[in-house]
Amino acid sequence: MSYEREIIRNMRGYTWGEQPVDGETIKLNTNENPYPPGPAVAAALTSFDVATLNRYPQPTADRFRALAAERHGVDVDNLVVTNGGDEALRLVCTTFLDPGSIFATTDPSYSLYEVLAAIQDCSVLRVPLLDDWTVPRNFAQLLNDAGARLACIVNPHTPSGVLASVDTLSRVANEFAGVLLIDEAYVDFVDAAQRYDTNNMVRAFDNVLILRTLSKGYSMAGLRFGYLVGSSELIEPMLTKTRDSYNVSAIAQALGCAAFEDLEYAEQTWASVRSDRRELREALLQRGFTVPHSQANFLLATMPDDSSIDASGMVAELRKRRILVRHFDTPRLDDKLRISIGTSEHNERLLTALDQVLAP
Amino acid sequence: MSYEREIIRNMRGYTWGEQPVDGETIKLNTNENPYPPGPAVAAALTSFDVATLNRYPQPTADRFRALAAERHGVDVDNLVVTNGGDEALRLVCTTFLDPGSIFATTDPSYSLYEVLAAIQDCSVLRVPLLDDWTVPRNFAQLLNDAGARLACIVNPHTPSGVLASVDTLSRVANEFAGVLLIDEAYVDFVDAAQRYDTNNMVRAFDNVLILRTLSKGYSMAGLRFGYLVGSSELIEPMLTKTRDSYNVSAIAQALGCAAFEDLEYAEQTWASVRSDRRELREALLQRGFTVPHSQANFLLATMPDDSSIDASGMVAELRKRRILVRHFDTPRLDDKLRISIGTSEHNERLLTALDQVLAP
Repeated sequence: MSYEREIIRNMRGYTWGEQPVDGETIKLNTNENPYPPGPAVAAALTSFDVATLNRYPQPTADRFRALAAERHGVDVDNLVVTNGGDEALRLVCTTFLDPGSIFATTDPSYSLYEVLAAIQDCSVLRVPLLDDWTVPRNFAQLLNDAGARLACIVNPHTPSGVLASVDTLSRVANEFAGVLLIDEAYVDFVDAAQRYDTNNMVRAFDNVLILRTLSKGYSMAGLRFGYLVGSSELIEPMLTKTRDSYNVSAIAQALGCAAFEDLEYAEQTWASVRSDRRELREALLQRGFTVPHSQANFLLATMPDDSSIDASGMVAELRKRRILVRHFDTPRLDDKLRISIGTSEHNERLLTALDQVLAP
Repeated sequence: MSYEREIIRNMRGYTWGEQPVDGETIKLNTNENPYPPGPAVAAALTSFDVATLNRYPQPTADRFRALAAERHGVDVDNLVVTNGGDEALRLVCTTFLDPGSIFATTDPSYSLYEVLAAIQDCSVLRVPLLDDWTVPRNFAQLLNDAGARLACIVNPHTPSGVLASVDTLSRVANEFAGVLLIDEAYVDFVDAAQRYDTNNMVRAFDNVLILRTLSKGYSMAGLRFGYLVGSSELIEPMLTKTRDSYNVSAIAQALGCAAFEDLEYAEQTWASVRSDRRELREALLQRGFTVPHSQANFLLATMPDDSSIDASGMVAELRKRRILVRHFDTPRLDDKLRISIGTSEHNERLLTALDQVLAP
């Protein structure tokens, strides 16, 4: 006899990126920040009073909420802090998606969305992005026609790195009858020249949630720390009902605040990633790859037309050289590599390896 | 227009225990271990390499699973690690409770269970405990008659501290047609003379899950670290599908292992709590309270018959003296105080305060 629910038995779980334990593999497969957290985080860890761990943490991470409220120009009631962005996405599904209802996203998109929708017993409307990975003009109309209750757009987009404009997102928010979550996991790597800022959207639309994480921009993937910004009507049920009561540990709260407050250090890592992204893209173009402009900390590189090896073959060859990149075995992506921006040294070693494999 | 699901809008969230930020209040309200984590945890924090935080944590906390597998005499496939016991309880609801199905527990019990069942849109069968807070003989039969799919028994019981025997639990597991979760949040404080050990139940029954947490026994409520032990058929969907992919941070994994490995230190705190529990119970009995034998780190004390003040009045008086205890405003509990065992000094100050209030 099986005790598991039928919908759980029939669904597929999320496939997480490989996390090698050796220190020598170059990880360009899971979009982590290649730089460690800054000295403020190290200092917060050192000064953390371990004797206080016997007590439950502050339930709603209020010190961080105050910091984030100031940065985003919103009230603390517009914020909920989560155990990584994953929890934020799950809470949104639990809170706004009735079982049997429709969840919508772009195709392709972050693969976790569909897993969470399946756990909630929802079907998924996948709206294909245009050839340049932009959101089609009739996106909201398609969602409304299908009766979708929740949509997730990751912006900058993964795996392409393409950025949708605030105008595009505002149009979707305005037209869509459900909740629009904008997953800004990679937003810290957007060039300042783009003047991308969704803070006004939160004030303008009661159906918009902005997801942020410290995983990438603040080099804290190992800590698990994310948050949502939105209207208090959307935030309140997640803060007081669907969230695990003590979802963010006392250490995570201390280190999350330290990382977030040291904006200067984080910005240095963003500047390095942007500069190296530009250089790596140029180098890939020179080698015959096609690479759209990316505003994230990764590039989506289509294999050169004249390559003697396909993308999955390249992944295997790179792995032999202890370099991990990501490959998606799906129709529009199977001839491409998603390459996280590493340190300058990582990127150089990647290019050397590519040259070895592509050489006649 | 409301975006929130109707069932979420209509439910009530969990009420967490008060967590005062001042260092002077004596907290006997949320069953924390009054002693800090041991030196091994402090050492693990000091030696944690903050530079590694930019990488995602090991997804399944395998080092801890190996330690726990050895301690429980099971395989790693019988274990899933969670962000506190709260997450474990939520995962069990998500994985085994279809919306609209029946969740069962004892009455009274840990109030979070009903909140999680409500989020899953399930109704709750509450089986009243007998006058001595033991589980009625026909418990499983009542559950089966109602068609319950999941039942949670907290053992030792909260708020009474009464321990159900392995024989009682095995009978329930054997007769019940659904999944039986035994919440052993307080198990570390059980007297060795009770010879209480459910490890064999995991091997004997494919429908049993044991919940453990480091919050109480290992003084780590602030860290958020729990785990479930059960048959691999029950564990697998939680490990690979319903759990957030990176649910336990790298720091939590390091500190959780350190705390769990330093069993000798933890056992010292358990011995102190047991000894102080015995003394505090005697002192309360002398003052006219009725107090059942408790195997947990708290006592349930019924106000003396001749008291000039009722239980909620006593809570208010103690609060004025900066001592927090828990009161439940429900029929069988409203004349009682649930008092966590503090340090000897905390318990002395509680008794002094009780004497002040009860004095004619």
